[in-house]
Amino acid sequence: MRLALFQNDCHPGDPAGQLGALARVARDWAGRADLLVTPELFMTGYRIGAEATRHLAEPASGPFADGVAALARETGMAILYGFPERDGARLYNSAQVFDGAGQPLALYRKIHLPNDEERAIFTPGDRIVTFDLLAFRVAPLICYDVEFPESVRACAAAGADLVLAPTALRQHWRQIAEMMMPVRALESGVYLAYCNQAGVEADWAYAGLSCICAPDGSVLARAGSGAEVIVATLERAAISAARSRLPYRQDGRFSLSGPN
Amino acid sequence: MRLALFQNDCHPGDPAGQLGALARVARDWAGRADLLVTPELFMTGYRIGAEATRHLAEPASGPFADGVAALARETGMAILYGFPERDGARLYNSAQVFDGAGQPLALYRKIHLPNDEERAIFTPGDRIVTFDLLAFRVAPLICYDVEFPESVRACAAAGADLVLAPTALRQHWRQIAEMMMPVRALESGVYLAYCNQAGVEADWAYAGLSCICAPDGSVLARAGSGAEVIVATLERAAISAARSRLPYRQDGRFSLSGPN
Repeated sequence: MRLALFQNDCHPGDPAGQLGALARVARDWAGRADLLVTPELFMTGYRIGAEATRHLAEPASGPFADGVAALARETGMAILYGFPERDGARLYNSAQVFDGAGQPLALYRKIHLPNDEERAIFTPGDRIVTFDLLAFRVAPLICYDVEFPESVRACAAAGADLVLAPTALRQHWRQIAEMMMPVRALESGVYLAYCNQAGVEADWAYAGLSCICAPDGSVLARAGSGAEVIVATLERAAISAARSRLPYRQDGRFSLSGPN
Repeated sequence: MRLALFQNDCHPGDPAGQLGALARVARDWAGRADLLVTPELFMTGYRIGAEATRHLAEPASGPFADGVAALARETGMAILYGFPERDGARLYNSAQVFDGAGQPLALYRKIHLPNDEERAIFTPGDRIVTFDLLAFRVAPLICYDVEFPESVRACAAAGADLVLAPTALRQHWRQIAEMMMPVRALESGVYLAYCNQAGVEADWAYAGLSCICAPDGSVLARAGSGAEVIVATLERAAISAARSRLPYRQDGRFSLSGPN
């Protein structure tokens, strides 16, 4: 599988502008990538405030979703993107994926909300979800979720070969991107893609540093601090090789339950 | 607390030689360190084979333990060391600690045995243990144990501020020492000390690279590949600061049980 991460310098509060940026990247990579991933809350930007987020949030079948689905169909590329999801009176910090025919494959709602701002807006999700693409089972997580080793373990326990984590990580947390993500991949024997924002949004300067990590803990692709697309080819054989070399899931003697 | 790790170039199968090496280091650091830690199976070396290990193994109150206790008393320094423990018909891959008065504080038995050689010799342990030293609650783990994020989480759940991991890590696993150990400290908000062997034993070349990691994921001290003592000062305030900054244990929504 050829995986591309769009480390985006976002236009906050401008879904049409964001869709246009996604269209340019998707068309550029059509035929050269099977799956394209965006940062967290890509549709709106991460830090537009509670009121604007509530105003712009859409159902998983809303107009922005239709636009992404059309783009997936046009380019033949699966696309996973972050957006504020409206479901009745509730909002979720969600990621949705469409396959290359524009069909919805999965909807994931962020389980771990990291701060008062997010907790004031969003309801936390309560489950790991997976979808199949090419020969890979894929599980999305979002930002803070992937900092918990238990989350990635839970994805692996659900059969995931690849964990996709849209994020919005600030510059002073760069150790999360640089040091923790390769370890998350290594300790659970999965590919792990961490797709961050670039640039500055309101008072936040993002770290960039998006990465695609292999199940042996090596880093296949690493972005700098600016807007950039990074790409890597994922091989199923690398997963079984890593799990034979380090059979952590088989040898581990603690067990996990949740989320609760 | 002033913590010292003795990254030892071991004399395999020679407990008297090992005790002599420990004595030289303990006397050298007397008054300048509160706690001294050795690598895994320090008493005998890691790789002397099943027969020699069975022959040399001692109860936790055996002559080697007496020698370490006397050294702790003489130098006023707590000492945690690795040894093959005999308990009736069973052997454990254990770590024992004496306080600076030579009194036993804790005995830990390795929970995760990583390979057929160890499994042929040792019975796995079945519990996390802690002890108190100065103002710190301390939990030992051994080698493979600390590669599981769940083990360090379980230590933190048992109140540990500091995790001590004697180990015997080969050169081709250096990513465990260099990359994973700081993440283990960061994700559970604990100090973590990883004390490896140096040099070559039988056909194994050890990585060295012992380290003392702070709860914010920074590396306070890092050894090279040869025999060396590394030292760092641990501060209680750094633990609460790291846990306020990243309240992973409070925010995590998966729960852990075991070992089982």
